Parts: sequence; structure tokens; C-alpha cells
Amino acid sequence: MPKKKSSPSAAATVEQPSLAVLQAALQVSPGSAADLAGRATSPASVFADKDAASASLAQDVPEIDRLQDRLFAEGKRALLVVLQGMDTSGKDGTVRGVFSATGPLGVRVQPFGRPTSEELAHDYLWRVHRVVPSKGLITIFNRSHYEDVLVVKVRGLAPPEMVEQRYAQINDFERLLAETGTTVLKFMLHISREEQGERLRARLADPDKHWKFNPGDLEDRALWADYMKAYDTALTQCSTQAAPWYVVPADSKTHRNAVIARVVCETLKAMDPKPRAPGYRPEDYVID
Amino acid sequence: MPKKKSSPSAAATVEQPSLAVLQAALQVSPGSAADLAGRATSPASVFADKDAASASLAQDVPEIDRLQDRLFAEGKRALLVVLQGMDTSGKDGTVRGVFSATGPLGVRVQPFGRPTSEELAHDYLWRVHRVVPSKGLITIFNRSHYEDVLVVKVRGLAPPEMVEQRYAQINDFERLLAETGTTVLKFMLHISREEQGERLRARLADPDKHWKFNPGDLEDRALWADYMKAYDTALTQCSTQAAPWYVVPADSKTHRNAVIARVVCETLKAMDPKPRAPGYRPEDYVID
Repeated sequence: MPKKKSSPSAAATVEQPSLAVLQAALQVSPGSAADLAGRATSPASVFADKDAASASLAQDVPEIDRLQDRLFAEGKRALLVVLQGMDTSGKDGTVRGVFSATGPLGVRVQPFGRPTSEELAHDYLWRVHRVVPSKGLITIFNRSHYEDVLVVKVRGLAPPEMVEQRYAQINDFERLLAETGTTVLKFMLHISREEQGERLRARLADPDKHWKFNPGDLEDRALWADYMKAYDTALTQCSTQAAPWYVVPADSKTHRNAVIARVVCETLKAMDPKPRAPGYRPEDYVID
Repeated sequence: MPKKKSSPSAAATVEQPSLAVLQAALQVSPGSAADLAGRATSPASVFADKDAASASLAQDVPEIDRLQDRLFAEGKRALLVVLQGMDTSGKDGTVRGVFSATGPLGVRVQPFGRPTSEELAHDYLWRVHRVVPSKGLITIFNRSHYEDVLVVKVRGLAPPEMVEQRYAQINDFERLLAETGTTVLKFMLHISREEQGERLRARLADPDKHWKFNPGDLEDRALWADYMKAYDTALTQCSTQAAPWYVVPADSKTHRNAVIARVVCETLKAMDPKPRAPGYRPEDYVID
């Protein structure tokens, strides 16, 4: 019998790609080359068209909220979502689009900017480890420790042999998180240089967006090929069973959000969080 | 001409109480007694009825989101929202209800639990100062440094003369925040002992809510009168021009959210954040 306000699962009428399909299409298989150059930045074959992506996203957004509630009620495990991508690739937009129903109670966004002098006085994972999600929460990294093998490598901010060591260190760190109850998902928002040009021009053309444009971004844009090479290496070296990388075609915002929502939603479903058992017997208590 | 998808301001057709009305009805006037016992826990006269409260809330929620975007784009000031109240008074529900459109990008929820040993090794404001909002953000304290003059006082966790010193220390701390760009709003979610009883019984009756019930909550419930006295003193001593306290009737969830959304929305409007001017001349840049 159809309900007016049906539960998310009852409303599940849209056909959606499974996690296996998404993994086959977008995950960098652990041990194999990322091959960024061979990967599309425009919508992949995962969704038939923009309407299908939109419908899938609309279905996943409330479901992610529901599952996050259960993760919180369980209070035993956590989810870390890493977002990486060139400027304008849509890291903020992904947070808005995918977690629009989830709210700040169970989701925390952690941006990583230029390290402070205190942070630089520690190893590069120190500031990262401090802010991984506590039990029951989802934390979204807007940029991450991967900057330490991306901008640091491209701009030569650390000796090459030091950068080389980091891939294994990062894998060890992420495995620690995974083994201690934090599921790790990593998304590279893959846009084309042309699409970035469009978006930067849009920022310059709109006074309301001027604050988003930073002339320094153009220096990174000029180093596009170097960045793609650094990404390629990072994704190849650091897509592991414990913490896989997904390369998300990101020229289309709807498609990008729909893909990420799918992976997040299916991952939470597979975690299957269950409200924790009370440490008391409810029948023992009577409220006056 | 009516639009299908009108902008928030164009849709502003609901009559809403002004900040002055809310202040007169619910703010503890700096320098005067809080008089908690004389304040209603059931819906006050601020809204005509539940429908009016609902309509006002529906109007404020997207407006708060819009203003938060501007606060972020301005990047110069911050908003701190302190939520205090007895168990089940609706601190989490307020976050959900008032910031449901705002999302985690610009809002951070900071819960305060029992202090860790490291926190206890510092002054009681140390852990609080670390997590005040950075520029451009809204941080919501779920409980706060006020626990140090509430539970600490009621349960005798610190010498009374030490607690007595804290009101002035808290006022100084909050004035520092206000003078350096952080607007501080404090809400006491005022429920009746009877309403708490209802809500605790509901938690015990529903297996999905068992995890929310903590037998220790009953110890605080048994100390209700002592807590009300401690709240009364805290609100009397610490409602200042720089950081006023509002006592929000919280037996009705809709009314509670509508009142808080109103104060937050009007406060953000009065701050009038404006996207920061770019530190460059847009016409100097052409994107290839």
C-alpha cells in the first residue's frame, strides 16, 4: 500500500548503479595504475543521463542522513571522506550537494590550508590525525594529507626523497584508521583544464564570486600537467583495499554529486550501523 | 509578480516578531534577575500559534543559510551559538531544526562532555577557547563552559568560592570574543520537569531511543531544583550586552526552533555580512 510520507526504502523506485558497478567504473584498483589521462572528466557511463543522476542523488541524500543517524546512535565507528581536486573542481559543492540533508550534527568539514608554523614543526600527518572523525561521526576532508604529495611535490616544498617515503606512510596511516573502525573513502574530483577555465572565468565575471578567485590559483593552473602527474602517482601508490581512491568525472556537478552520494550511501549501508544496546535494563526504570 | 521559485526575501510574506519583541519577551536584561521560575516553559506569546511558529521557522531556515554563505564569503567575523538546557531539552533537535538548510560547510557543532584528564589539567576555559568559531563560521556549543557553573556547582565538583569567581571570568572571556569579531548568542532551553518526564518515558518506551537514555540522567533530574537555582544565578550573572542570554520556552519543539531561528536570523541580518573585496583587480586577469 503506498504511503503519503513513505520511508526512504519504500520510496526506492529509481534504478541505481550498485557499488560493484561504481567500483569497476571509477575506483583505482589497488596495485594498478591510476591512468588519469585515460579517465573521463565528463559524465561517465554510470548514469544514463543527467535526469537519472539527479533522481539517484535525490534518493541517496535522505538515505545518507538516515544512515548517519544510525552511525551516531551506534557510536562505534566513523567515516572519513577525503575530497581532493584542482581549484574549482567542486569540493565545497560536493559537501553541499551530497550532505545537504545531513546537517552539522553528525558531519564535520575539515579544510586543510597552508600549514601553520606549529603544524610545520610536526610531521605532516600530525595535524591530520588530530582531526579524524570521532566515533559516530562523518568527517569530510576538504583537501588533505595528499597535499603533501601534490602541491609539496609539484612546487618542490620538500626534498623528492622525502616525498617518495610518504606514499607508504600514508598507506600505513590510513590502514591504522581502517583497522580501528574508521572507513576511509577518497574521491579525486577530476575536471578538465578547459572546465576549470570556464569556472575561473565565471568567478571573474561575477562580483559576488570575486572573493572565491585567488590570483595564486593561476600559478597552479600553469602547472596543470605537473599536478596531473603528481595525482597519477598518488592515486596509483595510495589506492588500497583499506582506503581506495575513486576518480570522479567532475565536469558535470550533478553527475559528480550523484556518483559520490552513491558510493557514500552504499558504503554506509554496507557498514550497517545499528543503535548500540543500552547498558541498562529499560524495565528497571520508572520516571516520576 | 509571483515567482515559482522566489528568492528568500521575495517570499517574505509571513509576519514575524522583530528582534526587539524577542528581546523584550525572552532576553534576560543585563543587570536584572533571570527569574527562571517566573518564565514560561510552554509557548510564549511571541507567536500566535503553532502554525505561525512553523511558518516563521520555514522562512528563517533558508535565510539563515543565505546569510551564513555571506558570513563565509566575508571571512571577517563569526557567530557563536551556545545551547544549554537540562537533558531532553532539545539541544540536538535545535541544531537539526534551525540549521537544517545550512549544512556542515559553514556550521560546526561542538559538544562538551565530561572533561578529559588533559582538559582538567588546564583552566576550564582552555578547552572552550580552542574551539570557538574561526572567521566566517558559525559554531554551535552543545553544552558549554556554563557547565562549569552548573553541574560543577550542583554536584560540588569545585570549591564554591572558585565557582563564584567564574561568572566574571566568563563575562570577560565572552567580551573578548565579542570585541574581536565573534557575536555570541546564548539560549537556555527551558523545559518543565513534567515535560522532561514525558520525554524520558518516551525514550524508555522506544527501543530505537534506548541509546539516548542514560540512567545517570535521573540523578540530575532528582536535583532539578538545584539546577534551576544554578541556572538562575548563571543567567543573572552572565547575561551581558556583549553576550546576552535568551530563555527559550522549550516544551514545544516547533516554538523553540522558531524562536531560536528568529534570533539567529535577525542577528545575522544585523551583522550584515558582505563578501570581502578581492585583493586584486578582476580586469587584470584573463584565463587562457
